[in-house]
Amino acid sequence: MIILGIDPGFQFSGFSIIKKENGKIILIEYGFLKMNPAKHLSVRVGEFFNYFEQKITFFNVTDISIETPFLGKNAQNFLKLGYLRGILYLLVNKYNLKIHEFTPRQVKLSITGFGGAGKDQVARVVFQLFPAIKLPNKYDVTDAIAITLCGAWQQKLNTLDFSK
Amino acid sequence: MIILGIDPGFQFSGFSIIKKENGKIILIEYGFLKMNPAKHLSVRVGEFFNYFEQKITFFNVTDISIETPFLGKNAQNFLKLGYLRGILYLLVNKYNLKIHEFTPRQVKLSITGFGGAGKDQVARVVFQLFPAIKLPNKYDVTDAIAITLCGAWQQKLNTLDFSK
Repeated sequence: MIILGIDPGFQFSGFSIIKKENGKIILIEYGFLKMNPAKHLSVRVGEFFNYFEQKITFFNVTDISIETPFLGKNAQNFLKLGYLRGILYLLVNKYNLKIHEFTPRQVKLSITGFGGAGKDQVARVVFQLFPAIKLPNKYDVTDAIAITLCGAWQQKLNTLDFSK
Repeated sequence: MIILGIDPGFQFSGFSIIKKENGKIILIEYGFLKMNPAKHLSVRVGEFFNYFEQKITFFNVTDISIETPFLGKNAQNFLKLGYLRGILYLLVNKYNLKIHEFTPRQVKLSITGFGGAGKDQVARVVFQLFPAIKLPNKYDVTDAIAITLCGAWQQKLNTLDFSK
């Protein structure tokens, strides 16, 4: 099981790739795709597709893990987030992957034990789990690692109590 | 200029293709893609991509015309509409097309002369413009034809007064 977790955005998309083997969790890649906001949306959609298609084929990804976004103040930005999710669904179809989706609350609960945790708390747990990570404290990347972990920990997740 | 206008949806996507040559408007194709709601979203995203990629290459499409959706009652459905729009943006990038986007009000105003027109009124004008159309009165297809026409009529549109 090789899971690609992504926190997509038109300017900055954090991601990580985790390999799950005999119950062991290995972080094999992490980073981010930065796109130039001056470029046309269609160009950025194309860049996003190419970048993650390459990651999927290079690392033989089997699963994609993403977070369910919630509608913020700007409905058109929310819609545009859908563009990048559509690209991920297309890649899922093209490479016959599985896709896992978690709410932000599920991700936080699964990582920190508390569904209302802040981004800094999530980041702290991620750095504790993977002390070798060399990263400026970029929440988008630590968030992406948390989302990827959720994909890897699914069985565990299902036994958690989401009622709290 | 060969314009593909689409009114996308996960169950039903109306579309039409219009050729503009020496100021003449020729409707060269119209119809719809129906997808099975029982299929996984990723499968439908893939179907949507393949179907319209084929239309683009077969008809040598140069432009895509779409309508700006507005947030309805269901934010998650609105987000999912973004998936299909993302696919269109990817095709725009892949085939170096131009993309034109109109608000529903702009489409109605441009077709009927009244920005608050109903779908039936838009359909009546479309049937008047193209009397040879053989269609059950499917609004999704007449809407798509109206959206395509907007792409073809752009210059005209720009001279209209949208303040009313």
